[in-house]
Amino acid sequence: MKRRLTEEDRTALAAIVGPERALFGASISEDYAHDEMERVRSFPEALLRANSAEEVAKILAYCNAERIPVVPRGAGTGLVGGAVAVQGGVMLDLTSMNRIRALDAENMTVTVEPGVLLMELAAYVEARGFLYPPDPGEKTATIGGNISTNAGGMRAVKYGVTRDYVLSLTVVLADGTIETFGAQTVKNSSGYSIKDLLVGSEGTLGVIVSATLRLIPKPQACISMLAGFASFSDAIAAVPKLIGSGTEPTAVEFLTRRVIELTEEYLGRPFPRFEGDAALLFTFDGSEEAEVEKRMERAAELCLKEGAIDCYFVDTDERTDAVWKARGAFLEAIKASAGQMDEGDVVVPRAEITAFVERLAAISAESGLRVEYFGHAGDGNLHVYFCRDGLAESEWDARLSRAFDALYAHAAELGGTVSGEHGIGYAKQQALRARIGAGQMALMRRIKQAFDPNGILNPDKICYETEVLP
Amino acid sequence: MKRRLTEEDRTALAAIVGPERALFGASISEDYAHDEMERVRSFPEALLRANSAEEVAKILAYCNAERIPVVPRGAGTGLVGGAVAVQGGVMLDLTSMNRIRALDAENMTVTVEPGVLLMELAAYVEARGFLYPPDPGEKTATIGGNISTNAGGMRAVKYGVTRDYVLSLTVVLADGTIETFGAQTVKNSSGYSIKDLLVGSEGTLGVIVSATLRLIPKPQACISMLAGFASFSDAIAAVPKLIGSGTEPTAVEFLTRRVIELTEEYLGRPFPRFEGDAALLFTFDGSEEAEVEKRMERAAELCLKEGAIDCYFVDTDERTDAVWKARGAFLEAIKASAGQMDEGDVVVPRAEITAFVERLAAISAESGLRVEYFGHAGDGNLHVYFCRDGLAESEWDARLSRAFDALYAHAAELGGTVSGEHGIGYAKQQALRARIGAGQMALMRRIKQAFDPNGILNPDKICYETEVLP
Repeated sequence: MKRRLTEEDRTALAAIVGPERALFGASISEDYAHDEMERVRSFPEALLRANSAEEVAKILAYCNAERIPVVPRGAGTGLVGGAVAVQGGVMLDLTSMNRIRALDAENMTVTVEPGVLLMELAAYVEARGFLYPPDPGEKTATIGGNISTNAGGMRAVKYGVTRDYVLSLTVVLADGTIETFGAQTVKNSSGYSIKDLLVGSEGTLGVIVSATLRLIPKPQACISMLAGFASFSDAIAAVPKLIGSGTEPTAVEFLTRRVIELTEEYLGRPFPRFEGDAALLFTFDGSEEAEVEKRMERAAELCLKEGAIDCYFVDTDERTDAVWKARGAFLEAIKASAGQMDEGDVVVPRAEITAFVERLAAISAESGLRVEYFGHAGDGNLHVYFCRDGLAESEWDARLSRAFDALYAHAAELGGTVSGEHGIGYAKQQALRARIGAGQMALMRRIKQAFDPNGILNPDKICYETEVLP
Repeated sequence: MKRRLTEEDRTALAAIVGPERALFGASISEDYAHDEMERVRSFPEALLRANSAEEVAKILAYCNAERIPVVPRGAGTGLVGGAVAVQGGVMLDLTSMNRIRALDAENMTVTVEPGVLLMELAAYVEARGFLYPPDPGEKTATIGGNISTNAGGMRAVKYGVTRDYVLSLTVVLADGTIETFGAQTVKNSSGYSIKDLLVGSEGTLGVIVSATLRLIPKPQACISMLAGFASFSDAIAAVPKLIGSGTEPTAVEFLTRRVIELTEEYLGRPFPRFEGDAALLFTFDGSEEAEVEKRMERAAELCLKEGAIDCYFVDTDERTDAVWKARGAFLEAIKASAGQMDEGDVVVPRAEITAFVERLAAISAESGLRVEYFGHAGDGNLHVYFCRDGLAESEWDARLSRAFDALYAHAAELGGTVSGEHGIGYAKQQALRARIGAGQMALMRRIKQAFDPNGILNPDKICYETEVLP
């Protein structure tokens, strides 16, 4: 059984990191009681700011011996309550471990500590002629958090997700031992890929203290294109054709007129004009501008052939700024319109997006909740927002519960799954269980036990500590 | 403890698949006592040809209850003794499960049974306008075997390895339950990626009965280029520049003059002329021929700038045939010259290939064994062959053991690892242990136990059944 902290624990833990980097009880800011999904709330008993792998190792060795829960935390930008100390114990703040250790230009890799922010990493490698392709929307997230959720982002269409760029991970295991999994190589078939098991494991199997990431040469050209369609289903119907056309879009986002209007209101500035009720926003990149433009022109022709009403290149600084500022503000705009909202991050096969969105309308009608959505048309990943719109708390909770149940059931029916890029954390465990069944949940629990027999690492995340009957 | 088959077991197992698909004892061909690495030899007690997931499930349920080892097997083209029944028991032949179930053109996926041959899969999807990018050299391997070893191949430079194309796997677990891991989606962050743990697990965690694979649009143009360099190190030094140039080569192979001479002799036909002691063989592909040619021209200029003596496009049918027939015959040519040989499949960071090859010369001198090599310059994966050249068996074994120990030690020192694409199987377990240490081996064993508590699935592969002290 795990236990609460004693005065003796506090003294021992403070001695590891020093008193300035150890906070306890009431001196811990409320910020650390939740992540960006504010519904899951619980205070840690201790907040320790680790500054090295050795400190992390000492903290884990102590907590493992003493059966004290440890919750690793980056920037706290998660959306599923993953970095919340739901069983109390120690919160291990890794944001000070934010050094970029080495860029290996010949092998095109970069080795970083987990607290490096995504935007810092992007700027660092781009200044040196490289690109780190994954680009989740939240640029102030840490790379450790990105790896822990296998974050996706818009460029997944062409470049894949975080997993595809993690070559090796140095991890502190639950008992405090330090191990490096994977290798600095592109190919590796040397036993079970524990590196791939750690990616997306949300801090439940080990604490990442260093990661070697694969880079690509920075594309010399990157251009966007906006195509307006009469309806959402027209827009989505064009996507498989575009993806299959060999025009190699880097990103294919869909926008609805409704979300754009909410965003115009929120930002107080107009979105560039386009015809119709929905739009696709593409980016294309490559090593030569002329070649990229040619592919984009072919894509534009194809869009028009597939029913786009208009199609234009986002090729001035003003347009680019207007389009991407708006795209970056969708979430906040919906939040502002809703007072409070809760979010689903479902993913369905690309060709099922329209069928799924039609079911969203039914879910909205049945639950009585307004629903907004935007997302990644190119990979079937939708961000769906249920809006509170002033509902009383009990009513909001009840409706939300029904809406989420229906949301995940429909995604599963269409061959999709619970989360495309945000993870399971604390909030989506029941949805995951409903999707994959008790057998797979039990297998995940056995894997967890293989790494962490005392269950100290981020307990009650992903696959519960003990099976909860539905 | 696992046990030997009884008459009762034989009756029960034959009843599951029917008598025509169940062979026992002396009626089992010697082919099933080994894979392409002929040094690991052991006969199974039963050979069962399963024809459906349900049959596999029944066999595993029986063998799990009765503690009988089960070794899944595809085409038997492995090179590490992975599909050899080293503890006897049942060999589960999956080559009859070779149906291509569905090609989903809109979502660009194909769902196949494990016994489909790589060349069958390639032909099927290419006839329908798609490409399955992984292309391990052995085209008669099954896709189930490719997934089980995370096979790589030449196109990994641009497209990645088998893992990157496996979206979901339906697997029979040790106790006979059937589960599907992953989803038909490109993005997925829904709990531990058990799908990624199964990829590369060499039949030790479950038996793959169906796989959904991601496809890409078939490139419209694909051209090769050969660049001759004065020395091997000159050739290799040019590689990082090429990879970093944005010319996006699909494959970058290196060839040594020695291996080409062996191959000319073996095939009895000349290899196209090139200057120097070593060559790089590139391929480039894309959706438009002109664009591909342009990239290749840029790559050729860069090669010449980086020291190539000559550089020409492999653009006639005759040249293409001569180059690629030779490339496909390297292994057999070395084998023919050596009488017997054994192979290492090490991978090092791309920029370390020359350093590694320099050490190969030292290993050859120290061990007294002739060494030949070729491989994938673009991803650091080298195939190294130690040649027997008529040595007496005891001498050959002793020298080989020394040579392999040195080989893996040098690979590790340079940041590489034991296997790039062939896996660990039975033969490379000690090398893996030396590379990753007892702690990681024990963790792998605990993962194995989480899946297969009775240890019936392909026992004594990857991480031993019980720890062997070095």
